[in-house]
Amino acid sequence: MSCDDNQAQAAVAVIGLGQMGTRLAQAFLAGGYSTTVWNRSPAKAEALAAQGATRAATVNEAVATSALIVVSLPDYATVRTVLGPAAGQLRGRTLVNLSSGTPQDAAEAAEWAAGHGAAYLDGAAMSGTRLVGRPEALFVLSGSRSAFDRHEAVLRSLGNSVHLGGDPALAPVYDTALFGLAWGALAGFYHSLALVRSAGVDPAEFGAVATAHMPFVTSLMADHARQADKGVFPDDDGTVEVHRAAIEHLADTSETQGIGTQVPALFRSLLQQAADDGHGASGIASVIEAIAKGRRHA
Amino acid sequence: MSCDDNQAQAAVAVIGLGQMGTRLAQAFLAGGYSTTVWNRSPAKAEALAAQGATRAATVNEAVATSALIVVSLPDYATVRTVLGPAAGQLRGRTLVNLSSGTPQDAAEAAEWAAGHGAAYLDGAAMSGTRLVGRPEALFVLSGSRSAFDRHEAVLRSLGNSVHLGGDPALAPVYDTALFGLAWGALAGFYHSLALVRSAGVDPAEFGAVATAHMPFVTSLMADHARQADKGVFPDDDGTVEVHRAAIEHLADTSETQGIGTQVPALFRSLLQQAADDGHGASGIASVIEAIAKGRRHA
Ligand SMILES: NC(=O)c1ccc[n+]([C@@H]2O[C@H](COP(=O)([O-])OP(=O)(O)OC[C@H]3O[C@@H](n4cnc5c(N)ncnc54)[C@H](OP(=O)(O)O)[C@@H]3O)[C@@H](O)[C@H]2O)c1
Ligand SMILES: NC(=O)c1ccc[n+]([C@@H]2O[C@H](COP(=O)([O-])OP(=O)(O)OC[C@H]3O[C@@H](n4cnc5c(N)ncnc54)[C@H](OP(=O)(O)O)[C@@H]3O)[C@@H](O)[C@H]2O)c1
Repeated sequence: MSCDDNQAQAAVAVIGLGQMGTRLAQAFLAGGYSTTVWNRSPAKAEALAAQGATRAATVNEAVATSALIVVSLPDYATVRTVLGPAAGQLRGRTLVNLSSGTPQDAAEAAEWAAGHGAAYLDGAAMSGTRLVGRPEALFVLSGSRSAFDRHEAVLRSLGNSVHLGGDPALAPVYDTALFGLAWGALAGFYHSLALVRSAGVDPAEFGAVATAHMPFVTSLMADHARQADKGVFPDDDGTVEVHRAAIEHLADTSETQGIGTQVPALFRSLLQQAADDGHGASGIASVIEAIAKGRRHA
Repeated sequence: MSCDDNQAQAAVAVIGLGQMGTRLAQAFLAGGYSTTVWNRSPAKAEALAAQGATRAATVNEAVATSALIVVSLPDYATVRTVLGPAAGQLRGRTLVNLSSGTPQDAAEAAEWAAGHGAAYLDGAAMSGTRLVGRPEALFVLSGSRSAFDRHEAVLRSLGNSVHLGGDPALAPVYDTALFGLAWGALAGFYHSLALVRSAGVDPAEFGAVATAHMPFVTSLMADHARQADKGVFPDDDGTVEVHRAAIEHLADTSETQGIGTQVPALFRSLLQQAADDGHGASGIASVIEAIAKGRRHA
C-alpha cells in the first residue's frame, strides 16, 4: 500500500520521528505538502499517518517517494546507518540533514551524499520543538544553494529557514554559536530574576518587563556586528568605563541581596579585559576583541 | 518673555538637557505636547527652543509652567541641588525623576517630594538615547499610580512607559536587573560573534541571523519566570544535563578555535551547580535557584 501514485508525488519525506522529526512532519503537513514518514519504531509513524502523512514501510521506500529527504536522528553515525541501505536511491534528490553534529560531521556527510549523486544541505533547528511551523522558528541551512532555492517553499513551512552559504559546515558552526548566544541571554535573565525576586518582585511581572526590554537589546546586535567587522567601536551605547561602573553596581547589589555574583563577575572581567586592552573609552562592543584574543582572566 | 500664557499651559517641563534630557524633550515635542525646558548651560535649551520648546530662565519658572516635571540629571545629589530653590513650587505637581540612582536614593527623593506636596515617580530609561520616542524604548516607572495614570499619555510619548508598582524603589531595582539582563545577551552575542568570526564567517551576516534568533530566546523568558515563581522546572526546553553536553561542545569548539572561554565557562559552572543541586533532569530554568542560593563556584 505504500508505493502508490500518491506517494510518488510526495513533496517531502521525513526520516526519524522523534520529538523534532514529528514536529517537522506536522509542519510540512500544515503547510499543505504531501509528506511521507518513516521511523524505526512504527508507532510514531502511525500517529502521523492519522494526521495525513503517508507511512513508508522502509527507508528505501521513503526516499523513493520524494525529491526532498529530511532526516532528524540523534547523530551522524545513526544517519549513515539508517540511510546506508537507501544510498542507491539518493541520486538526483536533495538530502537535508537536521541531526546535530560538528562541522567535520557535516563535511563528511556532504561528501557522502555527493558520492551518491545527491544535493546536500546541512541544517540545525534553533528554536526547540514548540515553535516549529511558526515564522519565528529559525532553521539554519548550509550547502547547495540551488537545492535550497528549489525547495525553499517547502522548507519555509518549518519557519524562518535561512541559507547561510555554500559550505555545509556553516550550519553546525552557527548552531554552536547561536546556542551560546541563547545561553548568554538566559544567564543574564536568570541572574536578573534572582535579583528582583530577592527584592520581593513577582517573577511573572518581571518576566513581562524583561520580555519588553529584549527588542532594544536585540537591536544592538546588528550594529555591534558591523563595528566588529570594521574594528571601530563608537561609544553611542556607552563606553566600557561607563558600563564597568554600572556592572560594579550590579555586582554590589547582588552581593548585598545575598544572591550569586558569578554572572556579574563575568561581565566585570570582560569589561576589565577590554579596558586593559586600551578600550576604556571605546564602545562596549570592543569586548568582542577581548574574547577573540583568547586571553584568560581569573 | 518666559512666564506668558503659553508657558502656563505647558504639558511638561524637562529639567536637565544632557544627552538624555534633550531626547526626552524632543520626544514630548514630537508627541505634540507643549514643553518647557531648562538647563544649567543655556545653549542646549536654546537648541530645543529652536525646535519648538519654551525656554525657562530659572528652574523655578520651569516648574511653575507645568503639572508634570521630568528631571534628567547625573545623580540624586544634583537633583536636590537643582530643584532645591523651586521646592516651594512643587505642591500639587508630579515629579518624575529619570536620573540614575539606588533604591535608597529613590526612597529619599520620594520622601522629599512628599514633604513638598508633590506626587513622585522614580524612573529609568532602559533603552539608551537612540530609541527615545519609539514604542520599543522601555521606561520603567514606580511610585504614585494615580500620578502615572494622570500623565500616562504624555509619558508614553517617550516610548513604552511601564508602571511597576507603588514603591518608588522598584524602578532602580528593575534598572539594575535589566542592565544585567542586557549584558548577559551581549556577552553571549560577543562570544558567539568571536567564535563564528574565527571560522571565517562575515560578522554582519552573523549579526542578522543572531537578530532573527532572539525572538525565540526572548519567548522563553515569560515561561521561565513562571516556572521560577512555582519552583517547578519542566524540561520542555531541554534538561540541565542535555544543555551541559551542548555547553561542553561550545567550550571545546571555542578552545579549538583559540578564542576565550570565559563565557562558556560561566554557563558550564551555572549548569554544574544546578546539577549538583539535584536538577540534572530538570528544565534549564532551575539555574535560577542555583544563582539565588548565592553559592560560589570557582
Ligand atoms: N528536541 C529538540 O528540541 C531538538 C532541538 C534542536 C535539535 N534537535 C536535534 O534533532 C535530532 C533529533 O532529536 P529528537 O529530540 O527528535 O530526538 P528523540 O526524540 O530522542 O528521537 C530520536 C529519533 O531517532 C531515532 N533513532 C535513534 N536511534 C536510531 C537508530 N539506531 N536507528 C534508527 N532510528 C534511530 C528514534 O527512533 P525510535 O522512535 O525508534 O526510538 C527517534 O525517532 C537530534 O540530533 C537533536 O540534537 C532536537
Ligand atoms: N545617556 C544615556 O544613554 C542614558 C541612558 C540611561 C540613563 N541615563 C541617565 O540619565 C541621566 C542624565 O544622563 P545624560 O546622559 O543626559 O548626561 P549628560 O549628557 O552628561 O548630561 C548631564 C546633564 O546634567 C546637567 N548637570 C550636571 N551637573 C549639574 C549641576 N551641578 N547643576 C545643574 N545641572 C547639572 C548638565 O548640564 P550642563 O549642560 O550645564 O553641563 C546636563 O544637562 C543620568 O542619570 C544617566 O545615568 C542616561
